[in-house]
Amino acid sequence: MSKEVPYKIYLEEKDIPSSWYNVRSDMKQKPAPLLNPGTGKPMTAEELGMVFCDELVKQELDDTSAYIEIPQEIRDFYKMYRPSPLVRAYCLEKKLGTPAKIYYKFEGNNTSGSHKLNSAIAQAYYAKKQGLKGVTTETGAGQWGTALSMACAYFEMDCKVYMVKVSYEQKPFRREVMRTYGASVTPSPSDTTEIGRKILADHPGTTGSLGCAISEAVEVATHNEGYRYVLGSVLNQVLLHQSVIGLEAKAALDKYDVKPDIIIGCAGGGSNLGGLISPFMGQKLRGEADYRIIAVEPASCPSFTRGVFAYDFCDTGMICPLAKMYTLGCDYIPAPNHAGGLRFHGMSSTLSQLYHDGYMEATTVKQTEVFEAAEYFARVEGILPAPESAHAIRVAIDEAKKCKETGEEKTILFGLTGTGYFDMVAYEKFNDGVMTDYIPTDEELEEARKKLPRID
Amino acid sequence: MSKEVPYKIYLEEKDIPSSWYNVRSDMKQKPAPLLNPGTGKPMTAEELGMVFCDELVKQELDDTSAYIEIPQEIRDFYKMYRPSPLVRAYCLEKKLGTPAKIYYKFEGNNTSGSHKLNSAIAQAYYAKKQGLKGVTTETGAGQWGTALSMACAYFEMDCKVYMVKVSYEQKPFRREVMRTYGASVTPSPSDTTEIGRKILADHPGTTGSLGCAISEAVEVATHNEGYRYVLGSVLNQVLLHQSVIGLEAKAALDKYDVKPDIIIGCAGGGSNLGGLISPFMGQKLRGEADYRIIAVEPASCPSFTRGVFAYDFCDTGMICPLAKMYTLGCDYIPAPNHAGGLRFHGMSSTLSQLYHDGYMEATTVKQTEVFEAAEYFARVEGILPAPESAHAIRVAIDEAKKCKETGEEKTILFGLTGTGYFDMVAYEKFNDGVMTDYIPTDEELEEARKKLPRID
Repeated sequence: MSKEVPYKIYLEEKDIPSSWYNVRSDMKQKPAPLLNPGTGKPMTAEELGMVFCDELVKQELDDTSAYIEIPQEIRDFYKMYRPSPLVRAYCLEKKLGTPAKIYYKFEGNNTSGSHKLNSAIAQAYYAKKQGLKGVTTETGAGQWGTALSMACAYFEMDCKVYMVKVSYEQKPFRREVMRTYGASVTPSPSDTTEIGRKILADHPGTTGSLGCAISEAVEVATHNEGYRYVLGSVLNQVLLHQSVIGLEAKAALDKYDVKPDIIIGCAGGGSNLGGLISPFMGQKLRGEADYRIIAVEPASCPSFTRGVFAYDFCDTGMICPLAKMYTLGCDYIPAPNHAGGLRFHGMSSTLSQLYHDGYMEATTVKQTEVFEAAEYFARVEGILPAPESAHAIRVAIDEAKKCKETGEEKTILFGLTGTGYFDMVAYEKFNDGVMTDYIPTDEELEEARKKLPRID
Repeated sequence: MSKEVPYKIYLEEKDIPSSWYNVRSDMKQKPAPLLNPGTGKPMTAEELGMVFCDELVKQELDDTSAYIEIPQEIRDFYKMYRPSPLVRAYCLEKKLGTPAKIYYKFEGNNTSGSHKLNSAIAQAYYAKKQGLKGVTTETGAGQWGTALSMACAYFEMDCKVYMVKVSYEQKPFRREVMRTYGASVTPSPSDTTEIGRKILADHPGTTGSLGCAISEAVEVATHNEGYRYVLGSVLNQVLLHQSVIGLEAKAALDKYDVKPDIIIGCAGGGSNLGGLISPFMGQKLRGEADYRIIAVEPASCPSFTRGVFAYDFCDTGMICPLAKMYTLGCDYIPAPNHAGGLRFHGMSSTLSQLYHDGYMEATTVKQTEVFEAAEYFARVEGILPAPESAHAIRVAIDEAKKCKETGEEKTILFGLTGTGYFDMVAYEKFNDGVMTDYIPTDEELEEARKKLPRID
């Protein structure tokens, strides 16, 4: 007989993983390498080192090591907010009247409000270790920028954040949190960079995109001595760092002999989903266990479900390396009515390969459905979720409802990536009944795809 | 040899207290009873029952029971966010270079963002049990209103919140959180009540005060069938519910054989401070142990340090019972530059009596010093504190610095009551260098005292 599971499964400090797990090590078909847009050849460590920190370049290129040790300094920081709770959603189950057993790994339990801190502190650490003055980055919803600001404050490094203009305006308080942590925050596109000025000229009045902000941050990093660029999602290194989510989730479930049937995560660039599923996907790749894994994306930015699997730029300015991924085209910018994050045109190469090879599914949800689920969840489970996280909540609730119909006692695990305290403008729209949905037309997507680079 | 203390001491679900501790039971000099302003006689249970829920009236008047059992329904709700972590502030100690050992009990680990939820869920539960339709209340900084909204959503009850106008304007997102939880929120003073209209006429352009908002909420509760008024601080019942903070803190410290020398809490109406110190104060009252206990108040609202110990109204409209307490006079309204909560003119009767009898100290801190400490703490400990909580942080840091000078290895425990995610307007002022301090003059305080009722 299995032990009774408490509301929250807390692991102890000693249970914080001592190594990250590198899911690429178990993939037969490795993710395709980043290409130099000039030569069309795989980026070398040296080339990548112009943009990224040396140690992070190593991690980016390493697709064979299964485990990479987490430096003690990073583990010490993790102790401030990890292990994060794994919650059994008893209240939600009861309210839904479902026989399903629902669990969520809650990563919003820190001031940055999301899982992004797991990789931010790692990237800041390696930058510090390399003797850099500071780092530059972009942020969309602001979670990554906040996380990086906290991490840089901890290591006393400079932090320059380019924030997607629509978020900058919708979330003035995010900016203040970053400033409180000592970061400088610039709305993107801005006139502080060459590429920003070009984008402003080509798209007057644009509300920005992650792709634009990345271009600006990369330009600043490569034009300033002692700076490197860091990124909160998409990259292999980020998925590596985020594997702590999945490792802890699995350890907590194992403690009570629980095996999930379905694992659900929201997907923008893939940082949370990739981290959450890592150890489970590892088992699946090694043929040791099977799980149904579902990526949930917004209907307004459907890279997996309506994109193409092809080489593309990671940024709008086309100065970044090319990545092979599911993409809508680097010129694609989600409609401004789309709230929250998950607005990147592409997707992690690792997850793209796994999706392409049939190891996971993907689905889309509409924004108003997402906020309905968010409000429902907030009232029942007592946590106000980030809009991003609510994509996973929506699908978890739908799956639990299916169990109610069929009577199946499935075990569902989803990632609750963060809190929505800085998303109240969007919640206000929902509360006022003026929130709208947006689904791009086929013509629109076709148009965005035209700029895909031609790679043989 | 004592065990090594982890960064966070988490208790288990089974360690959630099964009873609240009633500090009044151990007081030789009991807090003075509430008086009927009409008759000048102690309020009877029946009279109080017009305003408050019956079970809560019982708790309010009970100064002899040492322990009162926590109903299972409330304990179930507590499981969603309790036991809350007790944190050893290793990073702060290191940064300060102090031999002091610093601990804080972190109550911001829930969506309401503060300790207020501990009493909100209890009060909502008793209202539900009594078969009421809903409850009314006031909120200052918004923490209490948010907590009550969450609690009412959980029990599916109506919740009407009167929010101090200055906070309503400074914190529009707090309003949206409350609305997301289904509450109605009205800025106070408003024209929806008789007393609100009177206050607006007497003080045109007023930014409101807790005292005004209380008057309005009480009026609505007493004029509507099936409603009662609930309050987030000051009352004995609230301190009783908040004793879970101190009980858990003590249990966590006991686990590692740690005994605090100094216990520090911010004090507005006394809910957090009273809860945090309860079991420690109990020991002190029984002569079993000694602790130095410090209440920290804002220099702009110094009830303990510059008020008088006298009977006064709890509300500006003078429709509430009279309480004997340290008070600045129910007409006192802190200057609008004062950010955050801790803006009540009076103080818990229980704490007032304990302070009067010499069982605790009180001190004041200026707003800019508070935000300096808040920012410092955020960067070092990774938690962005509420301005209220930062009052305690300021004094904890100052005490730790004294230890650095003297070389004393004192153990400091303070209450980190909540997070500052909804206080970014105030943080922005601080970041921009335009935050100001306000210390009322003696003449101003003398003026406010003139309205104190004359009770023999």
